[in-house]
Amino acid sequence: MRHIWHNGEIKPESEAKVSVYDSAMLFGDTVFEMTRSFNKVHFKLNEHIERLFHSMSYLNIGINPDWADIKFFQRICYQLSELNDKEFQQDDEHRLMINVSRGALGIYKDVEGVVNGTNIMITDFPLRWTVNGFGKYYDYGINMVIVNQRALSHSQIEPKIKHRSRLYLQMANIQASRFKGDNWALMLDEDGYIAEGTGDNIFMAKNGVIYTPEGRNILRGISRQFIFDLCDKYGYKYCEKNIEPYDLYNADEVFITGTPFCILPVTKIDGKEINHGIIGDYTLQLLKIWGNEVGIDIRKQIKNWDLQNNNTEGVSPYIFK
Amino acid sequence: MRHIWHNGEIKPESEAKVSVYDSAMLFGDTVFEMTRSFNKVHFKLNEHIERLFHSMSYLNIGINPDWADIKFFQRICYQLSELNDKEFQQDDEHRLMINVSRGALGIYKDVEGVVNGTNIMITDFPLRWTVNGFGKYYDYGINMVIVNQRALSHSQIEPKIKHRSRLYLQMANIQASRFKGDNWALMLDEDGYIAEGTGDNIFMAKNGVIYTPEGRNILRGISRQFIFDLCDKYGYKYCEKNIEPYDLYNADEVFITGTPFCILPVTKIDGKEINHGIIGDYTLQLLKIWGNEVGIDIRKQIKNWDLQNNNTEGVSPYIFK
Amino acid sequence: MRHIWHNGEIKPESEAKVSVYDSAMLFGDTVFEMTRSFNKVHFKLNEHIERLFHSMSYLNIGINPDWADIKFFQRICYQLSELNDKEFQQDDEHRLMINVSRGALGIYKDVEGVVNGTNIMITDFPLRWTVNGFGKYYDYGINMVIVNQRALSHSQIEPKIKHRSRLYLQMANIQASRFKGDNWALMLDEDGYIAEGTGDNIFMAKNGVIYTPEGRNILRGISRQFIFDLCDKYGYKYCEKNIEPYDLYNADEVFITGTPFCILPVTKIDGKEINHGIIGDYTLQLLKIWGNEVGIDIRKQIKNWDLQNNNTEGVSPYIFK
Amino acid sequence: MRHIWHNGEIKPESEAKVSVYDSAMLFGDTVFEMTRSFNKVHFKLNEHIERLFHSMSYLNIGINPDWADIKFFQRICYQLSELNDKEFQQDDEHRLMINVSRGALGIYKDVEGVVNGTNIMITDFPLRWTVNGFGKYYDYGINMVIVNQRALSHSQIEPKIKHRSRLYLQMANIQASRFKGDNWALMLDEDGYIAEGTGDNIFMAKNGVIYTPEGRNILRGISRQFIFDLCDKYGYKYCEKNIEPYDLYNADEVFITGTPFCILPVTKIDGKEINHGIIGDYTLQLLKIWGNEVGIDIRKQIKNWDLQNNNTEGVSPYIFK
Amino acid sequence: MRHIWHNGEIKPESEAKVSVYDSAMLFGDTVFEMTRSFNKVHFKLNEHIERLFHSMSYLNIGINPDWADIKFFQRICYQLSELNDKEFQQDDEHRLMINVSRGALGIYKDVEGVVNGTNIMITDFPLRWTVNGFGKYYDYGINMVIVNQRALSHSQIEPKIKHRSRLYLQMANIQASRFKGDNWALMLDEDGYIAEGTGDNIFMAKNGVIYTPEGRNILRGISRQFIFDLCDKYGYKYCEKNIEPYDLYNADEVFITGTPFCILPVTKIDGKEINHGIIGDYTLQLLKIWGNEVGIDIRKQIKNWDLQNNNTEGVSPYIFK
Amino acid sequence: MRHIWHNGEIKPESEAKVSVYDSAMLFGDTVFEMTRSFNKVHFKLNEHIERLFHSMSYLNIGINPDWADIKFFQRICYQLSELNDKEFQQDDEHRLMINVSRGALGIYKDVEGVVNGTNIMITDFPLRWTVNGFGKYYDYGINMVIVNQRALSHSQIEPKIKHRSRLYLQMANIQASRFKGDNWALMLDEDGYIAEGTGDNIFMAKNGVIYTPEGRNILRGISRQFIFDLCDKYGYKYCEKNIEPYDLYNADEVFITGTPFCILPVTKIDGKEINHGIIGDYTLQLLKIWGNEVGIDIRKQIKNWDLQNNNTEGVSPYIFK
Repeated sequence: MRHIWHNGEIKPESEAKVSVYDSAMLFGDTVFEMTRSFNKVHFKLNEHIERLFHSMSYLNIGINPDWADIKFFQRICYQLSELNDKEFQQDDEHRLMINVSRGALGIYKDVEGVVNGTNIMITDFPLRWTVNGFGKYYDYGINMVIVNQRALSHSQIEPKIKHRSRLYLQMANIQASRFKGDNWALMLDEDGYIAEGTGDNIFMAKNGVIYTPEGRNILRGISRQFIFDLCDKYGYKYCEKNIEPYDLYNADEVFITGTPFCILPVTKIDGKEINHGIIGDYTLQLLKIWGNEVGIDIRKQIKNWDLQNNNTEGVSPYIFK
Repeated sequence: MRHIWHNGEIKPESEAKVSVYDSAMLFGDTVFEMTRSFNKVHFKLNEHIERLFHSMSYLNIGINPDWADIKFFQRICYQLSELNDKEFQQDDEHRLMINVSRGALGIYKDVEGVVNGTNIMITDFPLRWTVNGFGKYYDYGINMVIVNQRALSHSQIEPKIKHRSRLYLQMANIQASRFKGDNWALMLDEDGYIAEGTGDNIFMAKNGVIYTPEGRNILRGISRQFIFDLCDKYGYKYCEKNIEPYDLYNADEVFITGTPFCILPVTKIDGKEINHGIIGDYTLQLLKIWGNEVGIDIRKQIKNWDLQNNNTEGVSPYIFK
Repeated sequence: MRHIWHNGEIKPESEAKVSVYDSAMLFGDTVFEMTRSFNKVHFKLNEHIERLFHSMSYLNIGINPDWADIKFFQRICYQLSELNDKEFQQDDEHRLMINVSRGALGIYKDVEGVVNGTNIMITDFPLRWTVNGFGKYYDYGINMVIVNQRALSHSQIEPKIKHRSRLYLQMANIQASRFKGDNWALMLDEDGYIAEGTGDNIFMAKNGVIYTPEGRNILRGISRQFIFDLCDKYGYKYCEKNIEPYDLYNADEVFITGTPFCILPVTKIDGKEINHGIIGDYTLQLLKIWGNEVGIDIRKQIKNWDLQNNNTEGVSPYIFK
Repeated sequence: MRHIWHNGEIKPESEAKVSVYDSAMLFGDTVFEMTRSFNKVHFKLNEHIERLFHSMSYLNIGINPDWADIKFFQRICYQLSELNDKEFQQDDEHRLMINVSRGALGIYKDVEGVVNGTNIMITDFPLRWTVNGFGKYYDYGINMVIVNQRALSHSQIEPKIKHRSRLYLQMANIQASRFKGDNWALMLDEDGYIAEGTGDNIFMAKNGVIYTPEGRNILRGISRQFIFDLCDKYGYKYCEKNIEPYDLYNADEVFITGTPFCILPVTKIDGKEINHGIIGDYTLQLLKIWGNEVGIDIRKQIKNWDLQNNNTEGVSPYIFK
Repeated sequence: MRHIWHNGEIKPESEAKVSVYDSAMLFGDTVFEMTRSFNKVHFKLNEHIERLFHSMSYLNIGINPDWADIKFFQRICYQLSELNDKEFQQDDEHRLMINVSRGALGIYKDVEGVVNGTNIMITDFPLRWTVNGFGKYYDYGINMVIVNQRALSHSQIEPKIKHRSRLYLQMANIQASRFKGDNWALMLDEDGYIAEGTGDNIFMAKNGVIYTPEGRNILRGISRQFIFDLCDKYGYKYCEKNIEPYDLYNADEVFITGTPFCILPVTKIDGKEINHGIIGDYTLQLLKIWGNEVGIDIRKQIKNWDLQNNNTEGVSPYIFK
Repeated sequence: MRHIWHNGEIKPESEAKVSVYDSAMLFGDTVFEMTRSFNKVHFKLNEHIERLFHSMSYLNIGINPDWADIKFFQRICYQLSELNDKEFQQDDEHRLMINVSRGALGIYKDVEGVVNGTNIMITDFPLRWTVNGFGKYYDYGINMVIVNQRALSHSQIEPKIKHRSRLYLQMANIQASRFKGDNWALMLDEDGYIAEGTGDNIFMAKNGVIYTPEGRNILRGISRQFIFDLCDKYGYKYCEKNIEPYDLYNADEVFITGTPFCILPVTKIDGKEINHGIIGDYTLQLLKIWGNEVGIDIRKQIKNWDLQNNNTEGVSPYIFK
């Protein structure tokens, strides 16, 4: 039985629930982070917690002063995953979900079972759930479709805080599922620029430079930042830039990044093959050096899980597809 | 002990919780309704459930065919409130909250305790919680401030569905709480028109006509519609119209509507007194005829609860104030 | 052999061509009208020509003073269709296309075969071409999908003039053809309001009133105006109004109008059935009274042509589907 | 008699026509390129054809697989201009126009003379037509006026594909012709940034750096790219940047670029002299090194043609002026 | 010598000045009204002063409580014009200008001659100055051109308060003066709708209804309201509505309204004649009944002044023309 | 008694007034500059005058050809401050205000005392007035609040010209004064990016780079440019960039710049402490090197004036606070 950390206590996973009177449920008023490990070592945990703190500050969600410390969160994350590890397989990775909400609204403070004040919960489950069937994408790439749903503008709800008022992502997934074929959603922002997928940042390469949308109407992914770091370290040129569909269609290569899968190639957008559908060199090299940095063959690990699950045909990651 | 209705079962209120793996918690992907009774008779229950069904349809949230029926929901709402009534005081009213989410995301379907498939929960609590301290507003009116947070545009997340991706409402409340005095937040939409409060629709009267913003970037409240119905019945002129702050400042009177309190006068906006701070005739008349329609003196009921609670000084309704 | 009218001359249809050095080809700088007959009597020809003159005036396209006369155009339209009628079947209807462009750009004035000065061409072909396979839509309704392509804003290129810079309509059709199923494209305008299809205006009915988008970012169709006229004559309430997808999804019924087919029911939008997919009463009644006005059973005529063509399964009207 | 290439055949120029039933005429649904030669050697032909292919792909206009090859197009362009050269004067240059449309709409497929399937036509005429009277602009510069017509937003119709739905360019020209004096139109985009002229890209220099608008709401001209290449080669600093009228008015110098004339100085904008009306050094130097690169004194060639035409007073390039 | 009223004192007109340290000069932070008389009786003085009070309230400009009274202002206006009347000709009318600013900024409070606290000044001069040369417009109508400068959006600086941050009006006038011919500027708002002129509201009539732009991004003129009142009284249909250039070009007639001239016909817009340049019936009738209401033949009065001034050829009203 | 320079004449300061019939008063149609001295040497006088000329050119405000010369303005500025210096204290600095307006509107040209033609006035007063009480801000930093008033868009009224149609700045100040605490206003632009304060430019530092908003919807301050120059000279990295509130909240440090105070630290924005409220290193270093460049300890000078004024508690700089 997996366990969770909840406001200082260890509880069974079946208690990973939130009251309907919590601000989380009433207003989508939660900030969160989802992490992954490589060889069971948490990746960029520091960066995730720092972003969590930025999100909390933005929303004026307070925190117990003893806990207002990245080190504290790191410690409890490790304690939790170590506690749970016996429930995981040897070749599993840990995926942590840290939710922080404002707690029960004042008028409901006396309802039994609500949390009054900031409500912090950390859960831990096998990463393989999230990437089930993704192995094939490393070989063939994913298809993306630009949906009608636009990315939330930073002047409406700030997308740089990782919050739970994300219904627009579900709308984007619903729309993508209505297209022919097996597609992932890609959103434009209100100005018509490429923004992001529904759980991933997008990159393209053209004439020797790697481009990604400016960090404005998107979540600035930890993996996105890691691509910048790898580029700095290995000497690839990169640039944040407004990108339009025309640019993407005519790119030399396109890929997406996300915590669970790191990098996936994109070989088709809106039915148009990117560079004749060939997975690009930057994609392959970045995937490889990322793997080197963390001591894991990322593609192989995921394909292995698919083999174990007899799921080599793949299933798409989002609910409606 | 109050009870809830959850996917066909009656459970204690302490189980009114949702898994963190539910789409509700992950994406703010819930639709809901909150109702009230008058003399313990549910008000406009039909209209609330119909709007709930519209919201579900918009989000492609399916429903057990046996339950896809307004009558079914009416029945269980009444059963629940009758069951709970012994926990309520004689002079209490019932406030129901109906939450419907898509249920657990597919990848989490095996976690213990999640609901796979549509997740419907109805809770029931005393209305007096919500309107605690509002009595004084019937005498002095509320102050509203136009905050910097804009109402969500219908082209970003449709505000006409009553969903839970409402972080922007909390942002508006946080901003209002930073102004001098005791204020309620009022939002403009992206075009600079008056939209709505963080839980209320706004009306103004000028030269014998009652105006309210067009039903575009707002929740079209059941109480808002009831004002139209009362106007039709009692021969008041009214009109949906784009309204700008200038119009509001120079109105003859301003009031807001919301399910728990029906109507509250607004006597100050952005520090400017509306008509020298005098509560207007339409406000008073509509409040009175509303009360007649439902057989309750609305103002008196709320002031009575305040007296019982020794809360005649009032507390503001939103968390940050 | 059908003939055309070209700047005062009758020519064979095979000469219905325009120089690549004509402003029409260089800039999409043409205005046009397409009409239909009922029982070979041209319908609303006056209105079509008047709109053509408005379009020409807007674009500063001059005209031979002798021809600047609605009556002149009426006369040549009739002459042309009478001349061609022997090529038409008994039960055919005439569809005229009137193109007016600015003629060859000055720098190309000496190229052989260009028209210097305003270039007017009228062609005439059987309406059945346009509505081939539409019969089934009268029984089952059409499916519309809201595509990502937005209707041109009136502040970019005025959509109320009927011009040929309409690439965005093709983009909308291409996008619609990428969705699952047999779909017609529906466009929002830049503000997120319902605008129009790629050759049709849209109407909805709700609670006894017929609504259609305001005449702002759309072509104001002659058929759209005729619906207003019929409503005036037969006592139906109607209203031009900003309409959003939410309104359309929850309408009592939806239909489109267009010159070739007059009225078609819409039974599904974005995969959601409108009123359980039942064709509405206003739709049926308006189709009937329209037919009465023009002495044709519109539905029967088109279904008849389909039977003659063995095309009762229907083909979609636009190129990509 | 000049000839054209049309879908594989050589035909006389008088047949350079397109059916009114072609998608080109119906929807402005054509992509095209216009090139020029220097000393009868085609300039940047490769780049033009590559952009043509990008445009076709964007619009899903297919192509005969044998022809889907830049080399194929290069070959036929050269064959055509060699064939026509005997009709040209010794000192002429070739201007090719390559139009590619989707062909006749399906419903018109049986009309005599239409092209079913992709319709490719290449015509060839003397460049001097296009630049007739431009000689004086090299001495005095051109005057530009910012017109009310805005450049098409990339989110409406993508301006980076070179298409024929360009009515807005004619509107801009019409507007410019209503100002006092001899003016060329300059358009802002919807955000109020400088976009482009009606057939030219704009550059300005300030404090030793050459600026040009970002490649967003404009056609990214081949000449514009060549300026970048020259800057790279000769060590001039340049930068793509949002430019506002204020910046342009206060620039050290301004010039425009376009295939037929390469570079023209701009000495007045909105009636304000740029740097006292003096043609700038970058303008002069770039014109000179461009000439060196192609072995032609560009200014002299055009002034020579003007002398031959007795047109040294100049005529403006656009139809309404 | 004419006199002015300044903060309670009567002074010679030569002292009608404001310190450069006054908020008026520093921020355009003044509200004002300009009125006119008919037969020396002030017209709509009540309405002007009420609007002045709304403007002051909007800007939080306080007022001496004794003066916060429409009657007080009426009285001093009459006293002033009576005092000055000896300087006026028999057939003159009074034009009052009431300026109210916030007074000297705090940091400049000790500068000699500044006004600390609200600074109110009323001046009075002959109306004929303002309408000099307008007589001919009643016969031939005015030409308007839509300029590139947009009307200020209500979400930037509220145009419904009559303030002095009106540089955009001068920009519009400057732009209009650069067009060929004798033109008055007409501005679109940011959404591309017709807004207003630089000192006038615009009306059009079509099919028996008089339309004028919604009162959103414009000054809601007193004359504009009077047109509504006249329409109510005399049974003309009228409607506030979004109007686009297309509508205006195709109107049956167009006119503008403004305090000094009441009504002027518009016979040409953007070079296009409205209804062949014929002044419309509504225009003529409204001008006549307005005259009847105030006991003046408005057209004749202005033409008379022109005759006296030998200015029957007319001069345009704005500085740059 | 201080004096002013007015259109070539020296006059007493009490005559520093402008007619209400001047375009300045009627339209906010003035351009201006405000400078300061260090040790009585005017700072960046050249740059101020050059910007003044740009502003005049933008507005088509002409100038006497003899005066159209930066040197001329420099000379009269020095003459004026030397003349006035006897009225200043030894440790004072000169603050010049140069106003240039278009002069009286034509129709008022005969009013006694108006200036016909360009109206230039230079006044001179002690800088200590402007920075009275600012000393404490160097120790504790200022608090900024993002107000609802947006910075004027460059497409409405160009903010890069320093004009007097600045009512929006007063609105921003009024709004800021309604928040709890002692706050300075910070404005977003229409796109939701950080723009500027009501008399200051804003900078932030993050990870070793200094950022400031792009020079688009702001006044491009002379002090802002001087920060760039200092960064160039002393090797600090800096960048103009779109900045959003999220970025500012999470900055390492924030400061503002303005001519009177040079640099002030910002320690709180919207109630959130920037870096725990600690004044940053770049702020301190830039303030120091600025002081070195001009031979003044800027902080000490201002604190000294405060001591002399017994104003060490500080007063906020804007009128409403």
